[in-house]
Amino acid sequence: MVNQAADPSGAKHIVQSFDDDMNGLTSKIIQMGGFAERQVADAVEALVNRDIVSASRVIERDKEVDHFEEEIDQDVIRILAMRQPMAVDLRIITMALKISNDLERTSDYAVSIAKRAQRLADHPEFAAMNQVRRISEQAIGMVKDVLDAFVDRDVEKATDVWNRDQELDRNYTSLFRELITYMLEDPRRISQCIDLLFIAKNLERIGDHATNIAEKINYMMLGSSINQPRRD
Amino acid sequence: MVNQAADPSGAKHIVQSFDDDMNGLTSKIIQMGGFAERQVADAVEALVNRDIVSASRVIERDKEVDHFEEEIDQDVIRILAMRQPMAVDLRIITMALKISNDLERTSDYAVSIAKRAQRLADHPEFAAMNQVRRISEQAIGMVKDVLDAFVDRDVEKATDVWNRDQELDRNYTSLFRELITYMLEDPRRISQCIDLLFIAKNLERIGDHATNIAEKINYMMLGSSINQPRRD
Repeated sequence: MVNQAADPSGAKHIVQSFDDDMNGLTSKIIQMGGFAERQVADAVEALVNRDIVSASRVIERDKEVDHFEEEIDQDVIRILAMRQPMAVDLRIITMALKISNDLERTSDYAVSIAKRAQRLADHPEFAAMNQVRRISEQAIGMVKDVLDAFVDRDVEKATDVWNRDQELDRNYTSLFRELITYMLEDPRRISQCIDLLFIAKNLERIGDHATNIAEKINYMMLGSSINQPRRD
Repeated sequence: MVNQAADPSGAKHIVQSFDDDMNGLTSKIIQMGGFAERQVADAVEALVNRDIVSASRVIERDKEVDHFEEEIDQDVIRILAMRQPMAVDLRIITMALKISNDLERTSDYAVSIAKRAQRLADHPEFAAMNQVRRISEQAIGMVKDVLDAFVDRDVEKATDVWNRDQELDRNYTSLFRELITYMLEDPRRISQCIDLLFIAKNLERIGDHATNIAEKINYMMLGSSINQPRRD
């Protein structure tokens, strides 16, 4: 086992390696997050442009996210076994493990959107698509900003993402009601609207996962939960 | 830092404490899992019996699951800081952290079902309810059995749960189609059917989380992924 105290002469080298380990872990989380963010953006683009080929690419690329998650799991286990991280470092490492779970789900929702985009490509154009796009921009913005907050260890930015979830929820609820109205007006559109309902729900869930990551950043930096009433 | 080698005279005491730590962690995962399983069962009972009061209780109890998750996070961080777990122990501890995430989501889906149960309590009786109940029994059975597999460190039982997810997915798809047919036949039932569609989806997702836990058990015991083609 590598242990600083056992080899004082190598202390500087080992300190640098620990920093390398931590930077490597952060960098993998960012890569995984960037990947998940792109998957969501590409899935929504495929939906809006009725682009079946792009939608298939999102679905095919999904296995990459499992590799990211496995690599992060293995890195975490290696760092824990080789080093003895304490306090904030230990919290960052354990939260990285949970954040990768949230990012894996985010990418999973992108695949679900891409599958529905394939089905919807044959349907006629739809007015609600603008709202779907707006909600997707909000959700993707939250994922992007929470990843920045993770790199910068920025609790304030994380809390800002956490607060933005309420607005996303409001827009989701309003889109949901609109889609129900369309279905009542024209039952032939029922299955199309149901796909859009589930897409909207997926985007709302992506926002929830960004919010979860924000909570984890708060915990890893301060050792405490975000001290505000929880959203419904 | 507690270190066995640094204090050979206390080795037995420390070995026992480490076992206590591991047993304590396992026991908290089981308590959390039992809680999540009960939340799902109670939410479905509230739905079937149109019992608004029981549904409210499920919603109110949700904060308890956050306490479980916080306690598990803190236990893991404490064990990692105090001990130097290696190999399978280290994998169990890190996977416990991720399993608690899956259980938190499971309980979250129970709340979502309970909220819809409250809305549906005013609607007339519905034929599809039997299928909803059947799917819920399958999903709850998977959660229960995967928790047993976790306690017993039983890879075979975990793989069995993993395989059962396909049947749950098939039943979900068949219920989905049936609900669409009802909506087309009687548009007045649209909003009721949408609530049932989302409930079915929540139950299907609960099965996915049990499947995720099965994969984690496999990884923690064998250090490798379940080597089978992934379900769609």
